[in-house]
Amino acid sequence: MTLFESMHNPEALKRLPADQLPVLAQEIRDFLVESCSQTGGHLGPSLGVVELTIALHRVFESPGDPILFDTGHQAYAHKVLTGRHDFTDLKSEGGLSGYPSRAESEHDFIENSHASTALSYADGMAKANEVRGVRDRTVVAVIGDGALTGGMAWEALNNIAERKDRRLVIVVNDNGRSYSPTKGGLADHLASLRMAPGYEQALDLAKSTLNRTPVVGQPLYEALHGLKKGIKDAIQPQMMFEDLGLKYLGPIDGHDEPALEKALRRARDFGGPAIVHVITQKGKGYAPAENHDEDQFHAPGPFDVATGEAKPGSKALKWTSVFADTMVEIGAEREDVVAITAAMLHPTGLNKFADAHPDRIFDVGIAEQHAATAATGMAMNGLHPVVAVYATFLNRCFDQVLMDAALHRQGVTFCLDRAGVTGNDGASHNGMWDMSILQVVPGLRLAAPRDAARLRSLLREAVAVEDAPTVVRYPKGAVAEDLPALGKVGSMDLLRRAADGGHSEDLLIVGAGTMAHVACEVADRMADQGIGVTVVDPLWVKPLDEALVAEAARHSVVAVVEDNGRNGGVGDAVARLLRDHDVDVPVRTFGIAQEFLDHAKRDTILQAQGLTPQELSRKLTETVSRRTEGAADPALADETA
Amino acid sequence: MTLFESMHNPEALKRLPADQLPVLAQEIRDFLVESCSQTGGHLGPSLGVVELTIALHRVFESPGDPILFDTGHQAYAHKVLTGRHDFTDLKSEGGLSGYPSRAESEHDFIENSHASTALSYADGMAKANEVRGVRDRTVVAVIGDGALTGGMAWEALNNIAERKDRRLVIVVNDNGRSYSPTKGGLADHLASLRMAPGYEQALDLAKSTLNRTPVVGQPLYEALHGLKKGIKDAIQPQMMFEDLGLKYLGPIDGHDEPALEKALRRARDFGGPAIVHVITQKGKGYAPAENHDEDQFHAPGPFDVATGEAKPGSKALKWTSVFADTMVEIGAEREDVVAITAAMLHPTGLNKFADAHPDRIFDVGIAEQHAATAATGMAMNGLHPVVAVYATFLNRCFDQVLMDAALHRQGVTFCLDRAGVTGNDGASHNGMWDMSILQVVPGLRLAAPRDAARLRSLLREAVAVEDAPTVVRYPKGAVAEDLPALGKVGSMDLLRRAADGGHSEDLLIVGAGTMAHVACEVADRMADQGIGVTVVDPLWVKPLDEALVAEAARHSVVAVVEDNGRNGGVGDAVARLLRDHDVDVPVRTFGIAQEFLDHAKRDTILQAQGLTPQELSRKLTETVSRRTEGAADPALADETA
Repeated sequence: MTLFESMHNPEALKRLPADQLPVLAQEIRDFLVESCSQTGGHLGPSLGVVELTIALHRVFESPGDPILFDTGHQAYAHKVLTGRHDFTDLKSEGGLSGYPSRAESEHDFIENSHASTALSYADGMAKANEVRGVRDRTVVAVIGDGALTGGMAWEALNNIAERKDRRLVIVVNDNGRSYSPTKGGLADHLASLRMAPGYEQALDLAKSTLNRTPVVGQPLYEALHGLKKGIKDAIQPQMMFEDLGLKYLGPIDGHDEPALEKALRRARDFGGPAIVHVITQKGKGYAPAENHDEDQFHAPGPFDVATGEAKPGSKALKWTSVFADTMVEIGAEREDVVAITAAMLHPTGLNKFADAHPDRIFDVGIAEQHAATAATGMAMNGLHPVVAVYATFLNRCFDQVLMDAALHRQGVTFCLDRAGVTGNDGASHNGMWDMSILQVVPGLRLAAPRDAARLRSLLREAVAVEDAPTVVRYPKGAVAEDLPALGKVGSMDLLRRAADGGHSEDLLIVGAGTMAHVACEVADRMADQGIGVTVVDPLWVKPLDEALVAEAARHSVVAVVEDNGRNGGVGDAVARLLRDHDVDVPVRTFGIAQEFLDHAKRDTILQAQGLTPQELSRKLTETVSRRTEGAADPALADETA
Repeated sequence: MTLFESMHNPEALKRLPADQLPVLAQEIRDFLVESCSQTGGHLGPSLGVVELTIALHRVFESPGDPILFDTGHQAYAHKVLTGRHDFTDLKSEGGLSGYPSRAESEHDFIENSHASTALSYADGMAKANEVRGVRDRTVVAVIGDGALTGGMAWEALNNIAERKDRRLVIVVNDNGRSYSPTKGGLADHLASLRMAPGYEQALDLAKSTLNRTPVVGQPLYEALHGLKKGIKDAIQPQMMFEDLGLKYLGPIDGHDEPALEKALRRARDFGGPAIVHVITQKGKGYAPAENHDEDQFHAPGPFDVATGEAKPGSKALKWTSVFADTMVEIGAEREDVVAITAAMLHPTGLNKFADAHPDRIFDVGIAEQHAATAATGMAMNGLHPVVAVYATFLNRCFDQVLMDAALHRQGVTFCLDRAGVTGNDGASHNGMWDMSILQVVPGLRLAAPRDAARLRSLLREAVAVEDAPTVVRYPKGAVAEDLPALGKVGSMDLLRRAADGGHSEDLLIVGAGTMAHVACEVADRMADQGIGVTVVDPLWVKPLDEALVAEAARHSVVAVVEDNGRNGGVGDAVARLLRDHDVDVPVRTFGIAQEFLDHAKRDTILQAQGLTPQELSRKLTETVSRRTEGAADPALADETA
């Protein structure tokens, strides 16, 4: 039996002799590389914290001492050490979640993968320990240096620093840049000094010592203090923490397990809030991941273990690429267009814009709130900013979209990638909220393109609007084949016309975004059964074109299909529009049930949600049959009195 | 003509000889006290920044150099100095807004009164200047020390510090506590030293000097560094700013106008981002406001100028009091119930809970995001937290309610005061969003009590739920008279029964929250005209009781009335529920049009929105007449086939 296989729980890890730990670490790394090469996954972050995770589970008593992972994509070693060894179906239906999961283990707490939240959970848990009179437990939070750019982390630190007697250890996992390992002895020495009286002197000593120690051609002091290139230069965790009055230990070499254990024990025994600043290397121990340029091993798909090369995947054009290329064009045409990303330059495709227009790209850190409001300021001052974020992260700046961009009627365009069901990354990554919550934002215009041609044209329409925020939302993955319009109904695209088949106007389907394709398939299936179906794609789902009212009134039933939560989405908006015009034709709305979706492939989820052409045509055929039987009722057909 | 009257624009102020400025300041104070004694308003904050505002407008060239006020409730002097002298109808329809207003003046930029946003606007505006090649303009942001506890401010500072060549001045208006004026000469001296080389030495000097200078019995150093009592002790702006690499000037006596001008000129001429730390006294110059205990002059109603005593107002029981008293009771019964406020201890009524249960109250600062997630952590660790916030501020933690509290199925109760139309404080204070955006949160339960008895019972039901977040929302002001139920329809309260008057079942009205009263008035009016109206109050508007389906199917028309935006609210939820059960009875939904509301009295707004019994019964009578004429159509009456 390998050491790996014996790791059924943290107790087994605690019993392991210290000299076996490097072997275990290597086994875990080999396992993660091999597993992720098959399934894909957050390999880089997890490889970086193998020793840290071992040390955490040897020092603390999980789950009594909860270990909270911020963002959660670095928790693979934690899964292994808490007995989860079958990564076969990682992120697929029935397999392990890509994030901590409370259903999987009592050692897991936070499932939300949105960054910068762990310190708030930790503060709450420590306060609960205090209220409940629990004095012997320590709450541990592991947070990346990047996540410290998020405002929530600051709010939490401010609260954590308030009291000196709550047992709480914050591990800052600082993987800001590649670097040579910090000398464990020095780091350890610093840590000892810092916990003792007079540590301010130690800090000065460290500064002067370190500044004189050249390491692989770059200033060690800079590396130790977590400085990152470009945008994040401002973050200096050490000083910040000290100002707040938090005990600080570090920097510690994050791959020196004994040093980590020592620091964590000191922090644990300190009895109040303490920071352990750990320097790790993302992708540690797997050469292709260590030597990456653009963080390709943050979350690779399947790859070849020997070379690190991605396995040949689909060559199909991706939504992100269409957005990226169009932005480069727009940027060339309009000097007032600038782009903003919240620490997602490559994933959003804005790296192309950055290359083409380097003076007009702003990476604000993991700070969606700031992104939205700074964009509003830019718009007030003559620019047209395009903020590109994943749809699920727009929720983090809802108040800013509403009260800053919209209230002030500013031309800011938000581009939401990964809208709709994304699937494998689980509940917190699905972009199923935006078309609902944005319905309440006065003046805001929201477009859902169904294909690449529509993304290009709607993005151009969006950046042309100067008196209101605009949103363009599009899904993950390969862009759908272009689906040309047959004509127009008002500003909407007409995709199928019931009467064209000689049928009666039984059903109007409003297909929002990519669901327009599904709507057309439904129409074709139903037409085969003699039911006349018209399909329109509104393109702009907010505001809806009032031409929809008369069109709806001509049909016996109206259906709406959207890749978005059913509550408050496009379906509700269509139904409301008809009601408000006294058109009481029956409406049926189809979208994602308003629940948190377990991780699974997108197609699996859509099928489970009944959002397939088969299931939709079955249901709608029933509805239409029931209505048309009782037909010839003028009240149903047209209420526009 | 007084000096005051000659202040038509900032140019007039710039021409005024320096020795006239104290006279002007006094005139402005007299005017503000007199005006606010009539209309009420944000007197305390505005009195504190009279000299600061004068100095800002003498040093900078508004609007080319935009002066951005965070929160905006300190902008009365700014209004006066930019030519707005008629405060007669302040905050009432047709009168001046209580906040900056772009419609009022080219000198106003930010209308949103949600805190901690101004630095983000400023960063965006400064970046826009850079992109546009504007090099001679300075962006100025004025932010309170309290607003620095909000995470957005941290996100912005992190971005502002990124570049050293953007002209941006941040004025920290530090009114943390009452204190004697900082000696202007010393503060000035410090400022000089700080902008010169070797300012670190000056800092040390200042520390040692100030610590030895006893001022009115409290350490001046502490006051100067913006320490606030209790929760906010952690904030030390000076050090924080220095760590970020921002130039720091201060502390400056905020009532020494020449010192302020000098510091602001230095900051302006510095050429890069600079902080000016100003110590002001809230309520300065008006004794009753200076000597307040609990910040009663932050935003008083009408008062007697001589005594500062509030003019006799309504003695009616307020919603906030009912909540506050019930919380004290619940806290006495359950030791696991704790309360959380985001810097609104008194306005939310939680001061009573704090007095009764001092170990179970947590004020987290202006940090709604942290409040929601820390509450989730507390719930995970055995407590039941109650987070009390104004409804409009819940938007700031939407992602945390969704992805932290709800995703993890934790028993956290959010109590939303000031829900619905609040009126005078303008667009950003109306609580008209919560019943819509919360509809998308899986598992979350949302209650809207119609009176004090229901608030008491629903709050108790809410804190009894341990596997999902719950929300209780209630309006501003005096609680409505108790409206007893005639019976039950499922879990809903039956308030009127059509058949009781011998009428047919023409109309079912679902009255959400306080709109149940309006619904009953509508029913009574329509009954007088022979129309049978049933009224139910669902109490819990999410999830809706499915008993509503059969009840709706018995009526010819269903109407929903809510004090919330129409889009995605209770009306849409009722319509969706009926559709999903194939009940196609016509539905009409009434709420607030989805637009930003200008400041006006609540009643004026409700009237303009058609949410009066008169207007609703007129419209519904029409709808019912049209439907019942074409009646005897079984398809309309009952579709539950």
